[in-house]
Amino acid sequence: MAFSLNKLFSPKDRVFYSLFEQSTNNLVEMGEAFVAALRDPDRTKRDMALRGLDDLEHKNDEVTHQIFIELGRNFITPFDREDIHTLTTALDDVADYIWGSAKRIVYYNVAEIDETMHKMADVILESIMTLQIGVRELRNMKNLKAITDSCVKVNSLENDADELLDAAIVRLFDGSQNIDAIELIKRKDLYEEMETVTDKCEDAANVIESIIIKYA
Amino acid sequence: MAFSLNKLFSPKDRVFYSLFEQSTNNLVEMGEAFVAALRDPDRTKRDMALRGLDDLEHKNDEVTHQIFIELGRNFITPFDREDIHTLTTALDDVADYIWGSAKRIVYYNVAEIDETMHKMADVILESIMTLQIGVRELRNMKNLKAITDSCVKVNSLENDADELLDAAIVRLFDGSQNIDAIELIKRKDLYEEMETVTDKCEDAANVIESIIIKYA
Amino acid sequence: MAFSLNKLFSPKDRVFYSLFEQSTNNLVEMGEAFVAALRDPDRTKRDMALRGLDDLEHKNDEVTHQIFIELGRNFITPFDREDIHTLTTALDDVADYIWGSAKRIVYYNVAEIDETMHKMADVILESIMTLQIGVRELRNMKNLKAITDSCVKVNSLENDADELLDAAIVRLFDGSQNIDAIELIKRKDLYEEMETVTDKCEDAANVIESIIIKYA
Repeated sequence: MAFSLNKLFSPKDRVFYSLFEQSTNNLVEMGEAFVAALRDPDRTKRDMALRGLDDLEHKNDEVTHQIFIELGRNFITPFDREDIHTLTTALDDVADYIWGSAKRIVYYNVAEIDETMHKMADVILESIMTLQIGVRELRNMKNLKAITDSCVKVNSLENDADELLDAAIVRLFDGSQNIDAIELIKRKDLYEEMETVTDKCEDAANVIESIIIKYA
Repeated sequence: MAFSLNKLFSPKDRVFYSLFEQSTNNLVEMGEAFVAALRDPDRTKRDMALRGLDDLEHKNDEVTHQIFIELGRNFITPFDREDIHTLTTALDDVADYIWGSAKRIVYYNVAEIDETMHKMADVILESIMTLQIGVRELRNMKNLKAITDSCVKVNSLENDADELLDAAIVRLFDGSQNIDAIELIKRKDLYEEMETVTDKCEDAANVIESIIIKYA
Repeated sequence: MAFSLNKLFSPKDRVFYSLFEQSTNNLVEMGEAFVAALRDPDRTKRDMALRGLDDLEHKNDEVTHQIFIELGRNFITPFDREDIHTLTTALDDVADYIWGSAKRIVYYNVAEIDETMHKMADVILESIMTLQIGVRELRNMKNLKAITDSCVKVNSLENDADELLDAAIVRLFDGSQNIDAIELIKRKDLYEEMETVTDKCEDAANVIESIIIKYA
């Protein structure tokens, strides 16, 4: 059997930390590209940038797949297999729902990015960046407070997204905007998809919190 | 380290039974408040009562959080960790979807509570009260028949809710009600949210059933 | 205790292979009946055939229930308990979402089966038949390539369904079809339900792939 330098210097369970970091780094890139696309006043360029998120979503799929392969291969894992599985799925869902939001804007032919969408995208990006910190600190477990703080903050950002959604739904149905049913369907569906991104971030934060409880 | 009388008299795995009972007790309170709110002829009071369910949903969140903390702390659990996790999640989802139903009524500006909504709320409450019995009997496992019966009944109530939903959907789309698209969206979404509460009760009952199979 | 010839010749863990095969055989029957019903030009007969899928869905529920009972009874299982659980749930979901699609066509009063629905049904059937091959080969694990190939193909079929959905959604919202909001709701909901069948097939294939990684 060939001797692998790579394996020598990265013990088997270290691979999971690297893969989780790849995933959150990729998600941050996705979140930044999403926020930037929504800010673009040129609709053609905006839609092109949103379509481009597809590539980042695929990149995340590959990391997810890699983690599951490593999980199948390794008997020893840095934390519970089930926690690795749930965290991976949550991070994968974050990418899926950002891509789902981007797709809806393009495919539903959304003409105007409203204040709710901008604010929601900002919350999504902040939530992902906060997750990135928590994941990075998992590697050495030296700064437990930083991990806990990041989990608490992700939960609080999910509440913010919830409130943004609720307020937007009330406005959609109170008749004040004078929009037709098809326009209402488009916005309701898009707002809900965006809010779900923060739910998935919260799922990820909850796993990280439970890892801390067990291993701290 | 201080000596805790509480811990002396409640062995560690007993804590899970207490927490599950707290959760189902809380859910029954939520279900009763939900049914009562829908029966209130005064719309302002109805909406206020529905908004009040938020507090009960938060109370349930806290129990859920507590169970996950105990799960992280305890090596020995009264039944499979995975079953505890799934049951907790299902009970938490029951609270979430009742709150989701309450929110929709208020935020969608639903003017009239129709027969389907009343009947659905009744099925939800009965389903939760049946779950409460099953959960209470888990503690001593002396009355297995009572547990099985409660699981069977929750499954049958979920079928009732399914039939209520199906009949309501047929009426929405057969053109007989002469309602506009936005009204259709509101009702369809609300009916589906309410039916999902019974799905989550069924999920909880299915875990309880699988616990019985393993430990009886 | 009576001596069971059946048990003599089918070691306990073999029961899982048989049950998984029963489930996928049943799903193939469901998929074929679904495709055939959609092709029926007589709407009354079509709707009757679609309603008939209910029975097959119930049959699948029973297999699902049987697998969970066996899982509770048996300490030794042919592969990880969690994988058995996830695979069973995914196969059950496939049946649920086919039935959900059939129901929507009938209950939403869908007048015309369009090209997207036909193509989507074809992809669903092909996906299920591909799963059937993978599941059948699990029994002896002699033909790993056949299993892997089937998983790859199910993933690729899910992409096909995604593209069908995306294209159909674009057409719904680009204003070219001149349909009203209620018609749009019906089709959007039905397309999405059908696409979800292939997501669930993909979930099943992903578990099968992870079983292969661990046991090969």
